[in-house]
Amino acid sequence: MKILILGGDGYLGWPTAMHFSSRGHEVTVVDNYLRRKASEDVGVKFLYDNPNLIERAKIWEKVSGFKINVVIGDLADPSLIRSLFDGSIDHNWPMKSNCSGSPDTVIHYAEQPSAPYSMIDYNRANETLHNNIIVTNNLMFAARDYSPETHIIKLGTMGEYGTPKIDIEEGWIDISHKGKKDTFLFPRQASSVYHTSKIMDTDLLWFGTRMWKLRVTDLMQGPVYGIHTEESQLDDNLKTHFNYDEVFGTVINRFLIQSLIGHPLTVYGKGGQTRGYLNIKDTLQCIEIAQKNPPERGKMDIFNQIVETFTVNELAERVKEAADEMGYDVTIKNIENPRIEAEDHYYNPTYQGLIDLGVKPNYLSKEILQEMIHILERYKDNIDQSIITKGISW
Amino acid sequence: MKILILGGDGYLGWPTAMHFSSRGHEVTVVDNYLRRKASEDVGVKFLYDNPNLIERAKIWEKVSGFKINVVIGDLADPSLIRSLFDGSIDHNWPMKSNCSGSPDTVIHYAEQPSAPYSMIDYNRANETLHNNIIVTNNLMFAARDYSPETHIIKLGTMGEYGTPKIDIEEGWIDISHKGKKDTFLFPRQASSVYHTSKIMDTDLLWFGTRMWKLRVTDLMQGPVYGIHTEESQLDDNLKTHFNYDEVFGTVINRFLIQSLIGHPLTVYGKGGQTRGYLNIKDTLQCIEIAQKNPPERGKMDIFNQIVETFTVNELAERVKEAADEMGYDVTIKNIENPRIEAEDHYYNPTYQGLIDLGVKPNYLSKEILQEMIHILERYKDNIDQSIITKGISW
Repeated sequence: MKILILGGDGYLGWPTAMHFSSRGHEVTVVDNYLRRKASEDVGVKFLYDNPNLIERAKIWEKVSGFKINVVIGDLADPSLIRSLFDGSIDHNWPMKSNCSGSPDTVIHYAEQPSAPYSMIDYNRANETLHNNIIVTNNLMFAARDYSPETHIIKLGTMGEYGTPKIDIEEGWIDISHKGKKDTFLFPRQASSVYHTSKIMDTDLLWFGTRMWKLRVTDLMQGPVYGIHTEESQLDDNLKTHFNYDEVFGTVINRFLIQSLIGHPLTVYGKGGQTRGYLNIKDTLQCIEIAQKNPPERGKMDIFNQIVETFTVNELAERVKEAADEMGYDVTIKNIENPRIEAEDHYYNPTYQGLIDLGVKPNYLSKEILQEMIHILERYKDNIDQSIITKGISW
Repeated sequence: MKILILGGDGYLGWPTAMHFSSRGHEVTVVDNYLRRKASEDVGVKFLYDNPNLIERAKIWEKVSGFKINVVIGDLADPSLIRSLFDGSIDHNWPMKSNCSGSPDTVIHYAEQPSAPYSMIDYNRANETLHNNIIVTNNLMFAARDYSPETHIIKLGTMGEYGTPKIDIEEGWIDISHKGKKDTFLFPRQASSVYHTSKIMDTDLLWFGTRMWKLRVTDLMQGPVYGIHTEESQLDDNLKTHFNYDEVFGTVINRFLIQSLIGHPLTVYGKGGQTRGYLNIKDTLQCIEIAQKNPPERGKMDIFNQIVETFTVNELAERVKEAADEMGYDVTIKNIENPRIEAEDHYYNPTYQGLIDLGVKPNYLSKEILQEMIHILERYKDNIDQSIITKGISW
């Protein structure tokens, strides 16, 4: 199968590329290094350097024997995605690629992925909205014009739903109202400009699905943790990014790094914020299962892509337990919440669809946390404490 | 009161400016002539020429004695709206304005307003998404940063709701689900990129309202008809635009012009498409009543701004009746629907909120249609039949 991965340099994009490549698919990745440039721009960095996408593809080919096509370019320019669908890419973009014709599957990660980044100021908010919506729109129109049968897998986020007082279903809800009934997208109200941009993406692809009978899978993912995947273990330079800063790092990463440097784990507010989480290996399982189960044309499948839920307090306790056993002496500290969010709320999401299709969850265990700590210890000297708190507030 | 009108050159923007100006408010209008440029770009035109915004403000001042401040600039550039909130506008933008400090009320019409325009191609789709979302975001951040107590009145559209099988409430719905309850934005699913961009605007302002306790009124308006308003009757050059083309004209305008030139009224498909309509004079009433009734901070009021509903077939019959009585011989023809939409559907929207606040509806009557025909007859020689059907399809 021809698989096109948008945002192939990202935390999930690159592991996804190797995953499908190793299974014999013809994989093309596209990226404009938005994450790398944004990191520089706001003064944060990865814990360790990562080769660029072209270098990584070379290493991958050397160790695996599989080729990954690389295209460096900005997908907010509609001509790029269109040239990838009509096969004219070779002549237009800097990095030659031998992909020809429309992809069977597009996996769309090409979005500005950070809530705090989107809240730094109005320029970053605009950048997030523009990039995320225009890239999605360009993809939607390219599929309409060249290949409506292409399966579009778009990464959404559980954050689209927010924290409603009713149970969260997988994407859809039946509403009975004044004696009549209809089915709708599950109500969405998010708590950052980034998360709101993802609501917009869902609305846009649902529009395209209804109008032009596109085939879309929207995966409402929770925060992902983990570093190595099966494929990255072939060469240490193939492992994915690790961010622990306030802008691009997620809470588990921040806690792990704080454990290593003897800093109290900083819990925002009361710490009752509950979210769904998953291991990066489960993201790959989910994406592969979604790719193997495309919806029929005119249908948008939505899955909640998490395998378990934790409060922030529970995560802090788990990291403390894992690190303490390795000889660290971890403390936990509640700090003022820089975000505007409920700190103690009802949260009952359904997440059965992907498990029914065959995903076998890797639950967050002490062993997995300790394995991550072992990797991170190699880079302890790189840790820059100043980037853990940059002072972004809502 | 200081009232800032974004999109003040538009079909509703200019009448709104005169309406508030004549009531003694300090009115500033902003526009970048997007509608005029887009019309040129796609080869359509107004039925009659309209003086530009600067010229209109001069005519208005001469005949009314009231001054309207004019700013020509692009609100997608965040510095423009910010300079209008912080009072630094004089130094930055071409047209001097003596507005100082933050407005009490912003009336936000500065959006690309045409569904067919947004569906011409991916570039117009991108332009619509970018303009409508970024302008709204710039306004939201300016209010947050300079004046969160400013009342933002945003024009939404009934098209955000689509045509659900349940009754359409005014913006919100209580959902009971598995023994729990919560209140959400009424489900929205639109049928053009333009209408989808308006869903996004609502989501964005609802985010800002929750996060920063902004004060927002979102007016879900139906198609508006009518030419003269109380204020425009002071000078014929003050009357608002009239579009009858496929891109910017609405169905009533198309039917009126087709009647005049002896062309059958072109009903798209079966003609059972039902929508809510209102007279431009009622738009002004609604906006004024919204302006006088701002929500408290942290609350978003949503009203359905229509006064009656019609099917397309009913509109055709009404126009035929009015024109036939004036000596025309009108025929009606069903043509293939260029849009993807339900042509026969349930439609039961509530629209009581603004009436409860005091709006006295001007219902669509034969006399009102005949009054419009009288005005249009003066410009019969300007009618260009070729722009009524441009071949835009979904």
